[in-house]
Amino acid sequence: MHGMSEINVLGIVGLGGIGASVGMAAKQRGLAQRVVGVDVDQSACQAAVEAGASDEAGQHLSRLKSAGFVVIAVPPEAIIPVLSQLAAYLPPSAIVTDVGSVKSEIVRAARAIKPDFTFVGGHPMAGTERSGIEAARADLFVGAPWIVTPDEQTSPDALAQVEQVAFSLGAVPVAMTAETHDQHVGLLSHLPNLLAAALLRLSAQLDHTELGGGSWRDLTRVGGSDPALWTQILGMNRAKMLTWIDALLNELTLMRGYLSAEQNEQVTAYWESARRLKEKNINDF
Amino acid sequence: MHGMSEINVLGIVGLGGIGASVGMAAKQRGLAQRVVGVDVDQSACQAAVEAGASDEAGQHLSRLKSAGFVVIAVPPEAIIPVLSQLAAYLPPSAIVTDVGSVKSEIVRAARAIKPDFTFVGGHPMAGTERSGIEAARADLFVGAPWIVTPDEQTSPDALAQVEQVAFSLGAVPVAMTAETHDQHVGLLSHLPNLLAAALLRLSAQLDHTELGGGSWRDLTRVGGSDPALWTQILGMNRAKMLTWIDALLNELTLMRGYLSAEQNEQVTAYWESARRLKEKNINDF
Repeated sequence: MHGMSEINVLGIVGLGGIGASVGMAAKQRGLAQRVVGVDVDQSACQAAVEAGASDEAGQHLSRLKSAGFVVIAVPPEAIIPVLSQLAAYLPPSAIVTDVGSVKSEIVRAARAIKPDFTFVGGHPMAGTERSGIEAARADLFVGAPWIVTPDEQTSPDALAQVEQVAFSLGAVPVAMTAETHDQHVGLLSHLPNLLAAALLRLSAQLDHTELGGGSWRDLTRVGGSDPALWTQILGMNRAKMLTWIDALLNELTLMRGYLSAEQNEQVTAYWESARRLKEKNINDF
Repeated sequence: MHGMSEINVLGIVGLGGIGASVGMAAKQRGLAQRVVGVDVDQSACQAAVEAGASDEAGQHLSRLKSAGFVVIAVPPEAIIPVLSQLAAYLPPSAIVTDVGSVKSEIVRAARAIKPDFTFVGGHPMAGTERSGIEAARADLFVGAPWIVTPDEQTSPDALAQVEQVAFSLGAVPVAMTAETHDQHVGLLSHLPNLLAAALLRLSAQLDHTELGGGSWRDLTRVGGSDPALWTQILGMNRAKMLTWIDALLNELTLMRGYLSAEQNEQVTAYWESARRLKEKNINDF
């Protein structure tokens, strides 16, 4: 494994909440000699430099021509276009990762592009329902899992470097395949977000949503998140989401049957199996 | 409206988390001259007296023969049996309320029992996933909505007294019909709890539930709650729950169709409608 002192220039493409947090954490922890940001939005570039998230920033990828390590932190659907364009600018020795919430489609596309540089997919499991530079924090990744998704063509050295960057930013690197990642985040993140949206839509039928207690507020907290972003995420994780939605439809239909037939013992058994898994969930932490 | 100084003896039947909290709040706020507790479990009686939740406590309802106001805080299915038995002990001038999470079935049953005392259903929207005396707190109800469910036979005076007790315990009394209550809690509380159980069951398919972030932990927080209690709650709110489950199945099936047909504009519009309702939810608080 190379020591991280070897990163001279760390490039960050996309200076929103996650990208700017990468920059802040990198600068605070001395991960690179220089942090260079790129964003199509000039005001985001300015805000990143002012907030101490990058040493310089501009709108064109040519700024990254001496970057040894690049983090792509643009919205999911823009990742593949950025990967294609980067091929013209980066040194062949560069290592590139991304922070997209969906991985299989991106890893597949990166392989098809066949750039000279090395790409390894990534996904820090951190963030909030807020976005933009105001959501950026140098400690955003501290203690959070940072999933890294090597495939059979990824060299152990490249994997180790991406894991080392995640670790240096304060996160806990976890390697798994892109498929396994997409299956996990489908249930653990994308389905909860979809349910928040579905329940909020149902609440249009009520006069007194102010009566909602802790479980309602918890469930719908993420329901105000960006529609365009979530359309991209769900679309790029389509196959897994269809499977999870079907599995949830089955669970709800099962309970509907028990309730409708007044099968109280089955209702209790259903709840008990959930409680056992809750205990397992807690113990997994 | 009678002033609350008129409660000489406040009776509490059921000394778990909610019942003991009523006792603690009543004693702290000087709501009654004396608080008398009843619980089938002798150790719960002892714990309530030791915790300052009641001045005396015992296992038999005959202790309540001079109670002017009684709060029934037993599990949902035990409320109607307690109401029937209380008729033999209370003075006819007594006012009785309960704290059950479901109301229509209880209000209907109370009317059928035709006791001499006055019954008005109630439901403080407070509580946690914990239970028992350890969950009891004198400030549990502060700022929480306390729903009161009068029917056409409830006198304005009886309604005002129950609302005054809720207010005196720190809560915000809100009057609505038992039907409206059950419809609201079906979506705002019972369905979120069911979803927590359903998602936990789906998590059995994953190897790494420890990757679950904030939205997963929020959603499944209540999934460890008591299976016997939830069997009672869902069973007593059966009709409304079947309606809400069907409505959620429709919402999920709608989104499934959009995703499956790659109708991105519809996915975005779905999410936007949720976000508008999230903003409405927040403004309602």
